[in-house]
Amino acid sequence: KSTVTIGLVQALTAHLNVNSFACLRQPSQGPTFGVKGGAAGGGYAQVIPMEEFNLHLTGDIHAITAANNLLAAAVDARILHESTQSDKFPVNIYINICCCLYHFIRLGINKTDPGTLTADEISKFVRLDIDPSTITWQRVLDTNDRFLRKITIGQANTEKGFFRQAQFDIAVASEIMAILALTTSLADMKERLGKMVVANDKNGQPVTAEDLGVTGALAVLMKDAIKPTLMQTLEGTPVFVHAGPFANIAHGNSSVLADKIALKLVGEGGFVVTEAGFGADIGMEKFFNIKCRTSGLVPSVVVLVATVRALKMHGGGPNVTAGAPLKKEYTEENLQLVADGCCNLQKQIQIAQLFGVPVVVALNVFKTDSHAEVDLVCEIAKQSGAFDAVPCNHWSAGGRGAVELAQAVRKAASQENSFKYLYNLELPIIEKIRIIAQKVYGAEDIELSPVAQSQISRYSKQGFGNLPICMAKTHLSLSHQPERKGVPTGFILPISDVRASIGAGFIYPLVGTMSTMPGLPTRPCFYDIDLDPDTEQVKGLF
Amino acid sequence: KSTVTIGLVQALTAHLNVNSFACLRQPSQGPTFGVKGGAAGGGYAQVIPMEEFNLHLTGDIHAITAANNLLAAAVDARILHESTQSDKFPVNIYINICCCLYHFIRLGINKTDPGTLTADEISKFVRLDIDPSTITWQRVLDTNDRFLRKITIGQANTEKGFFRQAQFDIAVASEIMAILALTTSLADMKERLGKMVVANDKNGQPVTAEDLGVTGALAVLMKDAIKPTLMQTLEGTPVFVHAGPFANIAHGNSSVLADKIALKLVGEGGFVVTEAGFGADIGMEKFFNIKCRTSGLVPSVVVLVATVRALKMHGGGPNVTAGAPLKKEYTEENLQLVADGCCNLQKQIQIAQLFGVPVVVALNVFKTDSHAEVDLVCEIAKQSGAFDAVPCNHWSAGGRGAVELAQAVRKAASQENSFKYLYNLELPIIEKIRIIAQKVYGAEDIELSPVAQSQISRYSKQGFGNLPICMAKTHLSLSHQPERKGVPTGFILPISDVRASIGAGFIYPLVGTMSTMPGLPTRPCFYDIDLDPDTEQVKGLF
Repeated sequence: KSTVTIGLVQALTAHLNVNSFACLRQPSQGPTFGVKGGAAGGGYAQVIPMEEFNLHLTGDIHAITAANNLLAAAVDARILHESTQSDKFPVNIYINICCCLYHFIRLGINKTDPGTLTADEISKFVRLDIDPSTITWQRVLDTNDRFLRKITIGQANTEKGFFRQAQFDIAVASEIMAILALTTSLADMKERLGKMVVANDKNGQPVTAEDLGVTGALAVLMKDAIKPTLMQTLEGTPVFVHAGPFANIAHGNSSVLADKIALKLVGEGGFVVTEAGFGADIGMEKFFNIKCRTSGLVPSVVVLVATVRALKMHGGGPNVTAGAPLKKEYTEENLQLVADGCCNLQKQIQIAQLFGVPVVVALNVFKTDSHAEVDLVCEIAKQSGAFDAVPCNHWSAGGRGAVELAQAVRKAASQENSFKYLYNLELPIIEKIRIIAQKVYGAEDIELSPVAQSQISRYSKQGFGNLPICMAKTHLSLSHQPERKGVPTGFILPISDVRASIGAGFIYPLVGTMSTMPGLPTRPCFYDIDLDPDTEQVKGLF
Repeated sequence: KSTVTIGLVQALTAHLNVNSFACLRQPSQGPTFGVKGGAAGGGYAQVIPMEEFNLHLTGDIHAITAANNLLAAAVDARILHESTQSDKFPVNIYINICCCLYHFIRLGINKTDPGTLTADEISKFVRLDIDPSTITWQRVLDTNDRFLRKITIGQANTEKGFFRQAQFDIAVASEIMAILALTTSLADMKERLGKMVVANDKNGQPVTAEDLGVTGALAVLMKDAIKPTLMQTLEGTPVFVHAGPFANIAHGNSSVLADKIALKLVGEGGFVVTEAGFGADIGMEKFFNIKCRTSGLVPSVVVLVATVRALKMHGGGPNVTAGAPLKKEYTEENLQLVADGCCNLQKQIQIAQLFGVPVVVALNVFKTDSHAEVDLVCEIAKQSGAFDAVPCNHWSAGGRGAVELAQAVRKAASQENSFKYLYNLELPIIEKIRIIAQKVYGAEDIELSPVAQSQISRYSKQGFGNLPICMAKTHLSLSHQPERKGVPTGFILPISDVRASIGAGFIYPLVGTMSTMPGLPTRPCFYDIDLDPDTEQVKGLF
């Protein structure tokens, strides 16, 4: 996807002389040093300087880590301090903080002068009474550290027996990353940071970052991260790199702010090509139903990326193992496998059409793909309702290899556009989940675990029922079962749990278990990554 | 100390027209959001922009966190993978890594072609056989998170029962921070990173970052952090901000590289004022015995910072509690307390003189200090062997308030200088510790715990006996007991444990327990820290 995004803007601007901007996600360092080795695109469709893109860049992910973990430390420290100190001490030191008024309102205390509080009111005021068993706010690191998936914290004597089970997630899975990607201004970001729910109190009421008095500090830590980073393609066309929320438990799209700034910069007739993680069932569905609602922007064209190899897998080809040599089904022409796999492409096109936006299929051509295979995919795509379908060679030829794609995209963008969301926010949470499962995934129905059911009724009661839905589902199948390729039917989608990112503004149902902390493989990419101390050249990233 | 450093360079350059550079440490964000609220100096002696100085700056500490935690993840993942996979699989994937030759040498295998290895040699080659109970490499965060002081990791099913006890330290306590502060070049840094010992193998041999194949990746993560950050004082004079190692378990000094670049820039006759944490017994002793050995630089003058308040505490004044109002002993003239406390100042001067460097005492004047008190301190300091002692008012008057200090420093620098180290590196570890304890702290002797004894013999056997010593001792007393003010005598210094930072290049004996992870107080600074979303102004940092 990254190479198509970059190839397309290179073609538009460097070859067709049309203003364009690519908006990409910042990659996590975890996978870069683990299994991926880099994410800057490839061949002649790349973001440069590639090393900076793959490393710290301007430190946005580090800022998220710092903010996320300050909030986590504040939660546990608050519980410890409330349990070991009298009401009197904390009130004296807490009472002068700026969010006083907010707390009075929250507690239903109709006073504005802290001096007039009764003892009971003081106690309510200084005690958040967090129920430790309800804490949902996790610590994060931008490192693939599998040993932090499940840990026990607070085991030192100084923590007086307040140990509990916790976990670290990869930094890009932090709600703060989702907020960075969805926010529209500094004021909006600060408000969202304050609304993040970290736990419930012992009465079942949500406890937020604002309740902990940490909103301002989080905003300060994020004040530079909110600014998109300007980079360029190999052909000198502009790229914004900004945010990179996890594509399974979050919405997996680059930032609203980068898109908006880019749209302003390209002007009328210009193009902003913005990236969404995974396929039409995940990245695109969330792009439309979550990101477009926040931004208020209407997309002109969907570019669906396809490869012959992936279609052959959907057509029943053997499994592909990273590192192992490719089986002959993938290196030799096999029109039957391609034809069989195109049912998946057809379904992806249909999903895009649900939203009323024209679809252009970009077939990313590999040197092992035969002409007949390429022609077959494009033919079927057009028969399946794509506005156009074109082969792309940007990897080997740069923007020149994506000129045909760029022309198709321009033509499609001039089409009439009847963009619509898939569901109304006012529908009950369960109905919204069912609509996505049935219309997008092709499920027969959904099945909620008891936990999922009680979470849904809790969130509905707490007033969060009107948020959009961010499904946490595998990207390896349209269903919940990674091994079911093609277009699975007749399945019941199991919802094991339902969680909420209130600051980011979505409810996320878990379809099975989703790992939020990748691990290092036996042969990690860091073996190949090296620095020449004389030339300062980096080796092993791409 | 920071304000004196800044006031002094402001006086030298903006008022006396002498080239100068201040070299400061980068503050940790942990204390900034916890108890300190900032470290940019104060009043009219400040580093600007103060917000950036106190926040992410150019991301050096974040880079250290990323590098430190990649290594930690690599250690645990390696143990897991070695235990669950056959010799054959790892060798195939590991054999092509660039550090092959190094491993052959390490293992005493006299071959250069991996293809000729015997099965037994392959097994030795691919298995580090790390003993999990000996792991000394800890994870870090730049957050005051007390709940991470003692944790259990690896409790998820995916880690197959390999759980173990571990901890997070504050990021600035990472050995990588100590390396950043002591390194002299990219090649030197890479070599030091590779030499860091993370654990022992089951034969008691040290296992290094190089053994884990992660040296190159660590160097890549640190490639920009090695460059000092140029900032300025309020009066426009130049400041390097670079590194900030923990002053108790590490050496607490700003970087060698910043000092060297600054010395080059100020030229002959110019001054570089570089900061060392805590008093003469800690920061200065380590500056001379550790940092000067690495840099090969010879200091011209020691500026010892004193305050009337601190001397009164050493003279027997009541305890000072943060947040509580100051007792009258500190706000009213009390010449007796000052005179009694000056024994500590005298001792600090004598410590500096052990190294043969002239001492100028800078008395940081507060508005509650009386003229008589100020005169008394300066008088006693001069009688005690200081080259000069002058009151400073840079806080209220900027560089103008430190002109007298600057003149004294210039004069002292023109004195003859007979700088010498306190001990020879070739002495046994235990002798080096004893010399510091007796000559610097005034202890009668030292007493080693059995753990400390066995660690010393282990390090001596492993060939690390010739490293300098970095004492981890409280800064609140010359002794190991924080409440013993003045100049304690007749005490036996207890060494509870001895550890090593092989990459940084020092052995660090623990005098009692040293917390390596601060906590958040009941009333953390983050309550006051806020961002105005309209003006982007930060409030609450200083």
